[in-house]
Amino acid sequence: MSASLPTPRDTEAKLQHILLHSAQIFAKQGFERTSIRDISKATGVSLSGLYYYFSSKQKLLYLIQINAFTSVLESAHAKLSGVEDAQRRLRILVGNHVEYFLTHPNEMKVLSHEEDALEEPYRREVAAIKRRYYELAREIFEGVMAESGSGEGLNARVAVLSLFGMMNWIYKWHNPRVDPNAAELAETIVVIFLNGVLGETSDGKLMSAGKEKAIRLD
Amino acid sequence: MSASLPTPRDTEAKLQHILLHSAQIFAKQGFERTSIRDISKATGVSLSGLYYYFSSKQKLLYLIQINAFTSVLESAHAKLSGVEDAQRRLRILVGNHVEYFLTHPNEMKVLSHEEDALEEPYRREVAAIKRRYYELAREIFEGVMAESGSGEGLNARVAVLSLFGMMNWIYKWHNPRVDPNAAELAETIVVIFLNGVLGETSDGKLMSAGKEKAIRLD
Repeated sequence: MSASLPTPRDTEAKLQHILLHSAQIFAKQGFERTSIRDISKATGVSLSGLYYYFSSKQKLLYLIQINAFTSVLESAHAKLSGVEDAQRRLRILVGNHVEYFLTHPNEMKVLSHEEDALEEPYRREVAAIKRRYYELAREIFEGVMAESGSGEGLNARVAVLSLFGMMNWIYKWHNPRVDPNAAELAETIVVIFLNGVLGETSDGKLMSAGKEKAIRLD
Repeated sequence: MSASLPTPRDTEAKLQHILLHSAQIFAKQGFERTSIRDISKATGVSLSGLYYYFSSKQKLLYLIQINAFTSVLESAHAKLSGVEDAQRRLRILVGNHVEYFLTHPNEMKVLSHEEDALEEPYRREVAAIKRRYYELAREIFEGVMAESGSGEGLNARVAVLSLFGMMNWIYKWHNPRVDPNAAELAETIVVIFLNGVLGETSDGKLMSAGKEKAIRLD
């Protein structure tokens, strides 16, 4: 049986191959409906070959989720390294996020739709890396606000999670035939967001979101 | 068997009861994993009683989705009636949307996660009402931009769908113990969005998103 096991040399590449195709099939037919046999078929890896990488469907779902967050977080850190300007840091964060998930729509869908399918202790570990990613975004956001001196009273959690909302909803509507590419999309989102949390409009009708008490819903 | 059928008087109330509890169980365990027996148990309505309202699980999923969009769209239209100020119309749209989905998190989850589970011809019908809702938002957005005279070159589709992103992501993170209520949340989103699409920041660093050519991702 050892002949069917991957050699150490290609282990990481093969794992990435499995994660990619598993995310695809989970995105298509859902985690619950997908059997290990389906995964074997989709990846072209035998059942014993798959077993080398994960011992259960739960573990596989965990690996897909952890792998996606690790990739996004690591590439964000790499691109942010040495960059101090707060607005530029925000641009990098958004650009990195939009680029990753626009090229990984299946992973985005699995992260969003199968969040609750994950059981402990995997669930806790995924929650922890998500938390680290949120905290990076929050820290960058606080940097932007501190640099501009505005945004007092703005609910930072709501602002940051609204930014994630703009980015994480893209997989629902992006159509590459009519919509902008990742860089343009990220730029539009950054501008809306930065104007949004820092700005006052030229007609003076709106205040900063931080002064939300000044305007109320009708 | 006719004794177990609902009387005409309470038909609509009973349907709403079924839709509410079905959305709850679909949100909890997913559409695929839920049987008609589970739905009977969750709603307290007999199988033959359920059959009076829908002939298949597909039809039920369709009814949940159509009902949610119809509710949101009708209440938006009712609140918008007679209101002409463009920014006030946007506030009403966002307030209505956030309020509905904050009080209907199960429906939000079913709309988002079970979109692909729906088959034709139901799928097409749900897509059509969604389109009408998007078009209402788009028309309100265009009104805001026309009134302010700004936003030339801003990608209206990306802007409107980013607004939906901020609103539709709320179900993922809103924690009633620490987060603002619907009205405050809606107001923060409106302010970020309106500043975002109309504004220039006080430090002059950012331009309107419409002038996106002026600034680029690094």
